[in-house]
Amino acid sequence: MNAETDGTWRRLREHSRRLGPVHLRQLLRDERRTPELVASLDDLTLDFSREKLDAAALEDLVQLARNADVEGMRERMVAAEPINSSERRAVLHMALRGGAPAPAGADVVVERDRFLDFAEQVRAGPFRDVLSLGIGGSHLGPAMAARALTPDHDGPRLHHVSNIDGADLADTVRGLDPARTLVIVCSKSFGTLETMANARLARAWLGDRAPAHMVGVSANPAACREFGIPQDRIFGFWDWVGGRFSVWSAVGLSLAIGIGARRFRSLLSGAADMDRHFRSAPLRHNLPVLHALVGIWRRNLMGWPSVALVPYDQRLDRFVAFIQQLEMESNGKRVTRDGEPAGGSTSPVIWGEPGSNAQHSFFQFLHQGTDTVPVDFLIAARPRDADRGHHALLQANCLAQGQALALGRTADEVAAALRAGGEDEGAVARLVPHLLLPGDRPSTTVTYRSLDPYSLGRLVALYEHRVFVQGVIWGVNSHDQWGVEHGKVLADGLIPALRDGAAVEADPSTRALVARLRDLGS
Amino acid sequence: MNAETDGTWRRLREHSRRLGPVHLRQLLRDERRTPELVASLDDLTLDFSREKLDAAALEDLVQLARNADVEGMRERMVAAEPINSSERRAVLHMALRGGAPAPAGADVVVERDRFLDFAEQVRAGPFRDVLSLGIGGSHLGPAMAARALTPDHDGPRLHHVSNIDGADLADTVRGLDPARTLVIVCSKSFGTLETMANARLARAWLGDRAPAHMVGVSANPAACREFGIPQDRIFGFWDWVGGRFSVWSAVGLSLAIGIGARRFRSLLSGAADMDRHFRSAPLRHNLPVLHALVGIWRRNLMGWPSVALVPYDQRLDRFVAFIQQLEMESNGKRVTRDGEPAGGSTSPVIWGEPGSNAQHSFFQFLHQGTDTVPVDFLIAARPRDADRGHHALLQANCLAQGQALALGRTADEVAAALRAGGEDEGAVARLVPHLLLPGDRPSTTVTYRSLDPYSLGRLVALYEHRVFVQGVIWGVNSHDQWGVEHGKVLADGLIPALRDGAAVEADPSTRALVARLRDLGS
Repeated sequence: MNAETDGTWRRLREHSRRLGPVHLRQLLRDERRTPELVASLDDLTLDFSREKLDAAALEDLVQLARNADVEGMRERMVAAEPINSSERRAVLHMALRGGAPAPAGADVVVERDRFLDFAEQVRAGPFRDVLSLGIGGSHLGPAMAARALTPDHDGPRLHHVSNIDGADLADTVRGLDPARTLVIVCSKSFGTLETMANARLARAWLGDRAPAHMVGVSANPAACREFGIPQDRIFGFWDWVGGRFSVWSAVGLSLAIGIGARRFRSLLSGAADMDRHFRSAPLRHNLPVLHALVGIWRRNLMGWPSVALVPYDQRLDRFVAFIQQLEMESNGKRVTRDGEPAGGSTSPVIWGEPGSNAQHSFFQFLHQGTDTVPVDFLIAARPRDADRGHHALLQANCLAQGQALALGRTADEVAAALRAGGEDEGAVARLVPHLLLPGDRPSTTVTYRSLDPYSLGRLVALYEHRVFVQGVIWGVNSHDQWGVEHGKVLADGLIPALRDGAAVEADPSTRALVARLRDLGS
Repeated sequence: MNAETDGTWRRLREHSRRLGPVHLRQLLRDERRTPELVASLDDLTLDFSREKLDAAALEDLVQLARNADVEGMRERMVAAEPINSSERRAVLHMALRGGAPAPAGADVVVERDRFLDFAEQVRAGPFRDVLSLGIGGSHLGPAMAARALTPDHDGPRLHHVSNIDGADLADTVRGLDPARTLVIVCSKSFGTLETMANARLARAWLGDRAPAHMVGVSANPAACREFGIPQDRIFGFWDWVGGRFSVWSAVGLSLAIGIGARRFRSLLSGAADMDRHFRSAPLRHNLPVLHALVGIWRRNLMGWPSVALVPYDQRLDRFVAFIQQLEMESNGKRVTRDGEPAGGSTSPVIWGEPGSNAQHSFFQFLHQGTDTVPVDFLIAARPRDADRGHHALLQANCLAQGQALALGRTADEVAAALRAGGEDEGAVARLVPHLLLPGDRPSTTVTYRSLDPYSLGRLVALYEHRVFVQGVIWGVNSHDQWGVEHGKVLADGLIPALRDGAAVEADPSTRALVARLRDLGS
């Protein structure tokens, strides 16, 4: 957390003490407040009017971004300085979509044209299925986008397999014909345990078609060649592209094959437009900055430990897992870039499911549970393929949930409704506490014209920059992920015991678990 | 929360003050402790040895269950008393699987034989696809189980559609042939907005095959008939079956068609065996009771607001959403059965994704974030179809993650590893804080022989009873869901404005959102 140079944190704490006890029902009585808490870029709008915020608090949040030098860090990122300090790397995924200049020596445009040309060749060729292997950042980006852009899909069928669990690949290749399947192996290092284990299984499944039907996407072309992939089927990216920011590179090849080069370029163009906005708009009107600051408000001022992400769009069902990774892997850190304790809470838990489904699941908890969990709603103005009347039902449900969360339902309102429904006074007294909604539960609503490639690119870039801004304010390095390394080492140590029955040196709990799985498994 | 009759809560708070500061690394040095924190029913084992618990604390947790009269409430449930007090209904999903007697007048066995016979007829007939429509409890159960039991699937292909978003149905029926598709409409009331809107779309899609190719599953057969479904295609259930507990009834028809009656009966049998265990095992050795009590320990004594559910099984990917609904809809309540404030935290947030995928996503946060989030791991001893060597990789990763979360990695250990890797002292000093893992982060590991119908039935019933026990201890009614009613009313009020451009009376935020969606949508 940045130092308190000018009392901004103190003023923010005063705002939170002032606004905390004021019910959203009361805040929403002020007609002038709503327009002050809305920000747009063309048809994309972030509406914060249902947050427990006002313009004065927002001003001080913007000052927080200024104090943390968000603008300076942003320029250092664009200038290819090694802002991923623990790994001493630049962070330039913006360059993949033309949102920032590419670093000297990196043929970004050439490589992009190469993989998009290849995608068009595959679309014109005999393949019926594309199986893309990768995990984490090499999986969630293309899998999420392929699902989101279902109506744009006119190429071979796409399948994304990630898990080391053999069931994942087995269930996917059932029904596929190796003669008509292209296998893409995505791994930055080309050494990821899960991806390489699945790549070996897929190579065996392809049989003698193996080298001809395989493609490698990696920052390590030598390892691709060693695996047997011919040079003209290897597509590269660079060490300045983090896995969770890599869908814009050849990691998105499966998606490009599915939707075609033209639509893939439209996805990049949406992201680049968000980049330009992020680089040029004043902080007070800068969407990723405001989105980040509202997150800081929720997390560090109001103290809420999680956020429910609820897209009212069934095709965004993997968007939740994608953003969960983006935010929690980037900012789930407890030390600053300098290795000092972060001094406050960093990334919250991000979780969710699509609406309206979630209304029949965890919304009971959101409305009447004992905790406050702020919600991020996403809703398109236009459906891609349903009729307008049907889409209006979805929209009405989305807006009504945010409304019910904010306003609640008082005892008097419940009692009046029960009486109007013919209940006697005994039933009214008994039921009121169960039907009452406390309200005062905040949400942000993100709206846009429709979910197409351009719009999705813009939306993902919005969240990428939001994560960047929050990382700067928390003072953490959003671009490393050291926390996951040790588990890999420990797993390697347990494999001989579990696979071959070797002796295991470990704590009593781990030894007992190994023995139990071995006994039952044999 | 039940009253402090004998100081149990006080003693539990003392245990939490005693155990809170003791690192799991230290607790795990005690060889005698692990066996005291493990409980089994046949091959199903709950291992709590990586929780910040010991036998003494567990004893007092068991006393808590005794004080709350968990056993008495359990018997009242079995005796068909109206323990769903706000709706004055019995709660008897156990009767659907033979785990408890059916109430007088309900032909549970007859109706079960009827829908399972029908399932076998469909399997023997010409249908290639089954499309099951339903939402919430009428969706997640069969969709989760159909996915989990993929290797047991030898019937027509199954599709489950829930969302009012038109994309859900549109994407699903693309590629289906109405001439060879059976449509099942599941809705307890046969009036659920989403399900009935999708049912009307599906009826139109079926064209003149509509009545013959449609099946109704409902507690309201009259409404099914009115919709045009012939009497012999209507399968009933009862008002004592809550939606989220209904997969055992004809709501599971799609699943029964997919896996066949014999395997469906095996699913029921697994659940019934868990029922018998729950009804007869002493509290100290009762799996659902212990699982519930560890949840109470985490939530009310340690104060952790969420739980990550991480099955190391790709086919349990929807199990997380299913349990999320089961727990959060049942116990996301803020008043007791008597309408008094609950007086403490109730249901936590339940979220997660399958491992090993999640290791490349939010595990960074679990290891090095600023918050403690306890994890529930699930792992099978035997794979259904991968070879043993491949499955050992999955198991090793599962056990290693719990190990790393508990033990952490000290600065000395990190420094030694870096030096062994040839790093100079400058790099060691710089990197140690970034690589260090604090540890002391708890997890429970659930192990079982393999994921088959019997095993899944037992697992789901384990969680059902866990929810029941927690509800009793928190004093809430786990079987109603009043919190979601008001949003439906508000949504109805917004439909004319969004669909037809009618004027809207609402708060300024809602009015602005309606106007924005209307402007962009037209």
